Amino acid sequence: MRYAIVGAGAIGLFYGSKLVKAGNEVHFLFHSDYNHVKTNGLQIESVLGNFNLTNVNAYANANQMPKCDVVIVCLKTTQNHLLPQLLEPIVNQNSTIVLIQNGLNQEPLVAQHFATQNIVGAMAFICSNKIGPGHIRHLEYGKLTLGIFQGQTNHMQQLCTDLQTAGIETDITPDLIKARWKKLVWNIPYNGLSVALNTTTDQLMQNPHTRALVYDLMCETIAAANACGCNIKPDFADKMMHNTDQMKPYLPSMRLDFDNHRPLEIQAIYAEPINSAFQAGFDMKKTKMLMQQLQFIQANYMQ
Amino acid sequence: MRYAIVGAGAIGLFYGSKLVKAGNEVHFLFHSDYNHVKTNGLQIESVLGNFNLTNVNAYANANQMPKCDVVIVCLKTTQNHLLPQLLEPIVNQNSTIVLIQNGLNQEPLVAQHFATQNIVGAMAFICSNKIGPGHIRHLEYGKLTLGIFQGQTNHMQQLCTDLQTAGIETDITPDLIKARWKKLVWNIPYNGLSVALNTTTDQLMQNPHTRALVYDLMCETIAAANACGCNIKPDFADKMMHNTDQMKPYLPSMRLDFDNHRPLEIQAIYAEPINSAFQAGFDMKKTKMLMQQLQFIQANYMQ
Repeated sequence: MRYAIVGAGAIGLFYGSKLVKAGNEVHFLFHSDYNHVKTNGLQIESVLGNFNLTNVNAYANANQMPKCDVVIVCLKTTQNHLLPQLLEPIVNQNSTIVLIQNGLNQEPLVAQHFATQNIVGAMAFICSNKIGPGHIRHLEYGKLTLGIFQGQTNHMQQLCTDLQTAGIETDITPDLIKARWKKLVWNIPYNGLSVALNTTTDQLMQNPHTRALVYDLMCETIAAANACGCNIKPDFADKMMHNTDQMKPYLPSMRLDFDNHRPLEIQAIYAEPINSAFQAGFDMKKTKMLMQQLQFIQANYMQ
Repeated sequence: MRYAIVGAGAIGLFYGSKLVKAGNEVHFLFHSDYNHVKTNGLQIESVLGNFNLTNVNAYANANQMPKCDVVIVCLKTTQNHLLPQLLEPIVNQNSTIVLIQNGLNQEPLVAQHFATQNIVGAMAFICSNKIGPGHIRHLEYGKLTLGIFQGQTNHMQQLCTDLQTAGIETDITPDLIKARWKKLVWNIPYNGLSVALNTTTDQLMQNPHTRALVYDLMCETIAAANACGCNIKPDFADKMMHNTDQMKPYLPSMRLDFDNHRPLEIQAIYAEPINSAFQAGFDMKKTKMLMQQLQFIQANYMQ
């Protein structure tokens, strides 16, 4: 299978490079790093082992890329308006588009433009940072959970096999929407609060007041998911609290976006879940308050 | 009548100095400003007219003060644990203790120690800042609303007359608790959000997202007050929004406390209303979330 990676940041470079290293054909679309990578290749520091890649199939323009069987999208959701234009030259009728992205309701947007292609949603449980052009540091975890949104799955099993051969733990979920909500149970409290209170996951967990707030936001997210028909058990919040207690101090992706002056993924992580829950008759009061604070912060402190 | 001012900050110095200027006998208890005031007197810059006072009845120790008929307490509520010790030497059986303070449920705490004295709650609608030792700048407003919490009101009418003679607009409310809740309708959104988002009232009002959040918090406060039996009309929130739109950009008192590294009045402005509402069967969800954020900020950014 021929792979494309669209959005070659900390996540896309990690999975793409692992696929290359395992012998797969992978074509990377770069933005600002193109010249650097063309000359210097990729540098992967990883808890699974460091390696460099030279002679990378690097492109600065999607129009110069070949058609690919599997197009893995690792852009921030704030860039999703670019996807029709970026993906059109790379996909054929049977391609599978994999969205490794945060939040909710991005697959239907892509499906509006790519009605005949297969669309898969994916959630990365990974701690990986970009520390320079074509240079990432993978610190922890790496599991990928995939679920079909639309189409036949002729590439799905091969994709999982290729990823597993490359050393990536994968997991196929029969219920993509539920899996996305489950990831939101973590993302909604930690992403927003780490920006609103300019802090890290461990600080939020150490203070008893924010610890209680994190738990409340998790419970509200589970209640919203269940109003949308997901059937997540209430003790999933306790499990997420426990997991986070075991983690190293961590800067959630939204905090990294804030620190690096990138637009915040407010729409995908907050507005979409709030709207979906509202349509199902559930008011995510605290999540909405956090979103309003983030909107203020984005408007006033990131211009 | 003989007056005492306990807590000679921006509020206490304003009302106390106006009473002195109108010919009343006023004794001021100072903390850090005592030596400066003893030597240099008080300097009042005010939209109602500037003036200086010399030969101020200034004290560094409450034990050296005379018994007073009316003891006006302008300490921050975070200092209220000091009141038994500070007031004991100044009050007699018939004294009236006036609490010009923010928040809820402070009068009952004082009443535990001063069961036979008259206790009056008061709300200052004023913009006054302390800009140096014994030096304040009164920028706007100044009205005082008073309500009896406990006892006979033999001093109440005289106090109002003296204040009015001194040029202070006063207003007696028959329902202190309702008046305190009405002030909370303003204090709960603006105090906390100005700290949590490090901003000013006008910025909160200009951004459509925080404007909506301010309004939500006002409505939640009104609903809580009404659960406690207050009967505040819903359109009071609209009135407060309109009034704030007319105000100059303003740093609420909690933001000034934050900027000056003073403890935040979280207990009086947030925890007490939340607890009172909870006991009446109403959950102030958003207010509680704001309180939890403030508790985190106080613990992590003010040490």
